[in-house]
Amino acid sequence: MRFLRLLLGLSLLGGLAAAEPPQVPFPGYSAVSGQAEQARETQFRSMISAEKIRSYDEYLAAYPHNAGTAQDRKNVEWILSKFKQFGWDAHIETFYVLLPWPKQRLVEMVEPAVFRAKLEEPTIAVDPTSSQHSQQLPTYNMYSADGDVTAPLVYVNYGMKSDYEELERLGISVKGDIVIARYGGGWRGLKSKLAAQHGAVGCLIYSDPHDDGYWQGNVYPEGAWRPRGGVQRGSVMDMLLYPGDPLTPGIGATKNAKRLALQNAKTIETIPVLPMSYGDAQPLLAAIAGPVAPQGWRGALPITYHIGPGPAKVHLIVKSSWDVRPIWDVIARIPGAIYPDQWVIRGNHQDAWVNGAQDPLSGFSAELEEARNLGKLMRQGWRPKRTIIYCAWDGEEEGLLGSTEWAEEHAEELRQHAAIYVNSDDNARGFLDVGGSHTLQKFIDGVAGSVQDPEKNMPVESRLRLYLIQHSSSAEYRTALRHGADVRIGALGSGSDYSSFIDHLGIASLDLTFGGESGGGIYHSIYDDFYWYTHFGDQHFAYGKALAQTAGTAVMRFAGADLLPYDFSDLATTVERYVSQLKNGLANERTQEQEQNMEIKEGVFTATADPEQSFIPRMAQAPPPYLDFAPLENGVAALKQSAQEYAKAFAAAEAGDGASLARASLEKVNTTLIQSERMLTSPQGLPGRPWYQHELYAPGLFTGYAAKALPGVQQEIELKDWKMADQQIQAAGDALEREAQLVRAATTQLEQAIQ
Amino acid sequence: MRFLRLLLGLSLLGGLAAAEPPQVPFPGYSAVSGQAEQARETQFRSMISAEKIRSYDEYLAAYPHNAGTAQDRKNVEWILSKFKQFGWDAHIETFYVLLPWPKQRLVEMVEPAVFRAKLEEPTIAVDPTSSQHSQQLPTYNMYSADGDVTAPLVYVNYGMKSDYEELERLGISVKGDIVIARYGGGWRGLKSKLAAQHGAVGCLIYSDPHDDGYWQGNVYPEGAWRPRGGVQRGSVMDMLLYPGDPLTPGIGATKNAKRLALQNAKTIETIPVLPMSYGDAQPLLAAIAGPVAPQGWRGALPITYHIGPGPAKVHLIVKSSWDVRPIWDVIARIPGAIYPDQWVIRGNHQDAWVNGAQDPLSGFSAELEEARNLGKLMRQGWRPKRTIIYCAWDGEEEGLLGSTEWAEEHAEELRQHAAIYVNSDDNARGFLDVGGSHTLQKFIDGVAGSVQDPEKNMPVESRLRLYLIQHSSSAEYRTALRHGADVRIGALGSGSDYSSFIDHLGIASLDLTFGGESGGGIYHSIYDDFYWYTHFGDQHFAYGKALAQTAGTAVMRFAGADLLPYDFSDLATTVERYVSQLKNGLANERTQEQEQNMEIKEGVFTATADPEQSFIPRMAQAPPPYLDFAPLENGVAALKQSAQEYAKAFAAAEAGDGASLARASLEKVNTTLIQSERMLTSPQGLPGRPWYQHELYAPGLFTGYAAKALPGVQQEIELKDWKMADQQIQAAGDALEREAQLVRAATTQLEQAIQ
Repeated sequence: MRFLRLLLGLSLLGGLAAAEPPQVPFPGYSAVSGQAEQARETQFRSMISAEKIRSYDEYLAAYPHNAGTAQDRKNVEWILSKFKQFGWDAHIETFYVLLPWPKQRLVEMVEPAVFRAKLEEPTIAVDPTSSQHSQQLPTYNMYSADGDVTAPLVYVNYGMKSDYEELERLGISVKGDIVIARYGGGWRGLKSKLAAQHGAVGCLIYSDPHDDGYWQGNVYPEGAWRPRGGVQRGSVMDMLLYPGDPLTPGIGATKNAKRLALQNAKTIETIPVLPMSYGDAQPLLAAIAGPVAPQGWRGALPITYHIGPGPAKVHLIVKSSWDVRPIWDVIARIPGAIYPDQWVIRGNHQDAWVNGAQDPLSGFSAELEEARNLGKLMRQGWRPKRTIIYCAWDGEEEGLLGSTEWAEEHAEELRQHAAIYVNSDDNARGFLDVGGSHTLQKFIDGVAGSVQDPEKNMPVESRLRLYLIQHSSSAEYRTALRHGADVRIGALGSGSDYSSFIDHLGIASLDLTFGGESGGGIYHSIYDDFYWYTHFGDQHFAYGKALAQTAGTAVMRFAGADLLPYDFSDLATTVERYVSQLKNGLANERTQEQEQNMEIKEGVFTATADPEQSFIPRMAQAPPPYLDFAPLENGVAALKQSAQEYAKAFAAAEAGDGASLARASLEKVNTTLIQSERMLTSPQGLPGRPWYQHELYAPGLFTGYAAKALPGVQQEIELKDWKMADQQIQAAGDALEREAQLVRAATTQLEQAIQ
Repeated sequence: MRFLRLLLGLSLLGGLAAAEPPQVPFPGYSAVSGQAEQARETQFRSMISAEKIRSYDEYLAAYPHNAGTAQDRKNVEWILSKFKQFGWDAHIETFYVLLPWPKQRLVEMVEPAVFRAKLEEPTIAVDPTSSQHSQQLPTYNMYSADGDVTAPLVYVNYGMKSDYEELERLGISVKGDIVIARYGGGWRGLKSKLAAQHGAVGCLIYSDPHDDGYWQGNVYPEGAWRPRGGVQRGSVMDMLLYPGDPLTPGIGATKNAKRLALQNAKTIETIPVLPMSYGDAQPLLAAIAGPVAPQGWRGALPITYHIGPGPAKVHLIVKSSWDVRPIWDVIARIPGAIYPDQWVIRGNHQDAWVNGAQDPLSGFSAELEEARNLGKLMRQGWRPKRTIIYCAWDGEEEGLLGSTEWAEEHAEELRQHAAIYVNSDDNARGFLDVGGSHTLQKFIDGVAGSVQDPEKNMPVESRLRLYLIQHSSSAEYRTALRHGADVRIGALGSGSDYSSFIDHLGIASLDLTFGGESGGGIYHSIYDDFYWYTHFGDQHFAYGKALAQTAGTAVMRFAGADLLPYDFSDLATTVERYVSQLKNGLANERTQEQEQNMEIKEGVFTATADPEQSFIPRMAQAPPPYLDFAPLENGVAALKQSAQEYAKAFAAAEAGDGASLARASLEKVNTTLIQSERMLTSPQGLPGRPWYQHELYAPGLFTGYAAKALPGVQQEIELKDWKMADQQIQAAGDALEREAQLVRAATTQLEQAIQ
């Protein structure tokens, strides 16, 4: 997770410390059950030990443990033994996935001078695990095509859609060339995909010191940032089509699953790709001539950035062993006492590219510490109302393999039983950052109000709220924050294990992380290890503790509620904002294109072009038409209305001391509510990528990691397919209507239950 | 001149080529006189030769000719001979000014490692004049104090006011330290002045490759940009107090002028200052530790930028010979046939830091070519109605010495007789860029409509208009441009020889330059020479020719008009916009400070501060009060009203074929109009800097070069002296009222004259 999202809200600004505990402490609880819950949660949070988290991290990061390796298996066994030791019902689920491991890698400049890239990360003397070269996965982009190509080099900035648009304006083609892109700006898999789509025959991806090196701060080991020889490994699987094993889309990759032939797997990159350090990249970039790169394209190497193509010519070889290998998820369970068929799922991956003290172990060690203490509470007699399932995912780095295969294998049960999925991944010092389903916005706001910030004498929720007041450019949002509105959470895109749960199955999800203070540049390198993390990360695991407290509290509070605490008003308001952003975006684009067309007609570009630069005339483009947003607007209106009615019924249920909740039979309404996120999915999925079934959230087709809200509508607008955009507006509007209908049904059931 | 300003307007978009010549071709002309003028101007423009301009540039740039040197004197004599040869009445005026030349320069890092800066620019083999080291002025900041200091180094970004505010927020003082600032962001003299004001004991100024080096493009001699060893010389005189000889403020520095003692000269820097190349600066910057510099402070050297202070410690020595030396202006004259006492003045400096093929010879050679052809026209019998004075200024680089001393020496006559001053300086390829008095906006718009762009088949005015349509972010301005409104010209600040004319004497002025296509980084270095200019500048002097055509046409048209063609409507509209920008600026600042004060009260900054970074609590600041803008608004209203009435009278005078203009006696109204810019000055001048007497235009107290409109009001707002701000609003309002009164008088006189 590379960007701060947002979070949650309640009273604050003095009010937080002052008040008595409310009569009904938590939404969905009666006073009696809520007070018991509050006591247990408080106990739980006090039991979380930063020292334990540190010890888990140190143990699991001691050796490289890339998915499917012997050391991965050792770590998995140890994790299994821990869950069992903590009193959980735990087992390993094995999946058999395509894991191409590198056999041959070469990047050699053959013109105008000969230079051979090192393609390896040097040992750093003070860092004890950086020397474990024999166990380290070489610097590599998993799911690169095999290839042996020699071609001129072109610099394409971040290699994103807008960069190729700029190249087109400059009259530069990458056809038949090898592109070199810098990391950043979007998902790396999109860089090679777009390169291939534009006719490139190979792709190099390097870390520019501007984004991830000395421009940001002192480099490792003096500071936290990427040294000259540091390389970012990473998968280039086309996760925007579907994540998980490339050979078994939509089904669990069990031993005997029906597999695609390798050549039919659409998520494997079609050209060879390799990652590089800036030390290796500098001679290549310096040898490129042609037009000087636009200002926004220039990094921090001490060279003039040119675009090319050539005269630099590069010989690139990538060869892998294309084997199916086992990976191992650990699944652990505490059965629910009252609603055993309602599942609260929590996960974090444990596999790493190399040692992974930060990614993923800073998050995973927190999860393990939650499990230890939930086990302790169990031994003291506590039983959650709902079943709690803790997962240690494998193969996340390669393409969310472990979580996707598990979710696909168990899709039917999950669709029936899953109430929530709570994810985490890497963690750092700073501010809570939450992405998730907006039905959970109010819930997680409340949870974050219960967790103390390790650095400041206030809840993490209050610190985040103040952070947002400081940094939000919207005066309206600042005012809302000051008046106690729920802190907004971000929409989920992709890049961690929540993807299958929310995007594919429609399970209300949360992704939790702390960050914003400790930065650094060791992502996916051999330097992401215990030495680095304890010098430059969350050194004392104070925020590891806060993460365990936040996620564990969320799990307990959701598992223990009388009534499932979804809230639909925040959802309706959020979607309303998305719709208005879409409309404004289109209107701006329309104005801009009209202006540009007028300027083309007036001869502006011809008149102002410098005759010493090559000039590509611009073509007039049809401005985007007005789309019929009525289906979405009607959907929002219906959802708002039903959310209001549900809120009224909910308030009635909580009235007094919530005794009606305590005595009511809530099974029926809970069974309805558990399906609420499912209503937002469609079986046909998004155009061109049916695996993605959520109508509100998905990774953007041209961003990769980052979410695009109303993704079907947005992608068709970006593709300028107005007819499909209309259809997608209808599909999203239908989803909102279905949601409104479910909420109305739940309202009636709730009213009946508490009568 | 380092930033593109704007320009002019008439019909355009097809209309330009189509129409018949108007009955009255130029404002202020009758049809008869206008048609004669038009014919002569057309002839003049056809006579301008790029080859001649090239030959002047080559001759004058052959050797370094810094002001006051023997080579400067040789060039001056040659220029004098040229004017005489062209048929002008020309002479040299000598002034005796303080010219401190360097005797000793040292920059040595003494801790944590020893490094001695080269402080010299290397010869480049292909560049024949770069090896003339014995005649080159060493890399040096003129008017630096003498000093020998050793102190820790602090990096202060551009060293501007906002940078010191940021340092204060970070809790970093420069007291007792040597600051190192990068060039850019404002006038270099302000860097050392602010450093001294903040207690620094020395100042280094270097060219960062981000602003002026490889980040921008290929470096010389492969490309146009500053090489690793290139240094920007320059004056650090406190020109914001007054320009010209530091020893004779306000009076001409003639042989026997009364001089200040050296220690009483307030415009000499009080600490030692030296400029540096980025090659020399890199080891110093790399040795600074302390907090990492904020993002906007980081340049393009391959290091992490830190602020310090220290541990780098630097030994800095600057010693100069503080001598009064002669400099030589060339003044040449064509007497006016009808209004010999109304002067049209044109100037460009000819002195350079080193060879100066671009700065100033690209402009000066164009001026000389105008003079040649005006001389030719004279020989063919042409006589301008008004007296034309061409000036070749000396000592501009050191602080506008030649022009200031001449203007001060001749202040009385100039106040009586000067109708306009037309300036130029360096020149390049691209778009016309005009700054000046807004009474001349319509006039220069018309002139630019008569000059053909060398690269495109259209007038330079049309090309500029299209450029502004392309680049203006204001939809309102784009619409106005499309409907033929006059292209806006920028306000004049300082940095070239117009300063004394407009700022001190209130003479309506124009500053003309072309640019925006050919960039480069040889400013004030030994590489600003004929080789560089003919490879990377306006290689074929096509825009030198366009400059000569534009400035020469302006001179002829102004000198030949029946009625002086000032326009007051553009002035009124412009000042109205300035007032509204000021009010909006204050309102924004008020909102921002109120928000910040609220956040301080809420504890936002304490809550969000990273405990691992040092935290300086912010102090609440009183938001700016509401100021009484009525005097300015009434002044604008009065001026608008009178401008309208004048425009009516002007239209009546031009009615038919402007015959009433031809037969009227316009001496009286011309004598009134010539004083119009003077009305905008006040003898008391701006607060703290009485030399600056114009109420509308001056260089900003915290920008240096760039203009601040309504400078008295703005500077007092920036200084938060609200009482003085009120006084300055009154003073500026009074100036507008005086102007309105003059315009009313001129209207009556014009009406009477044409009856």
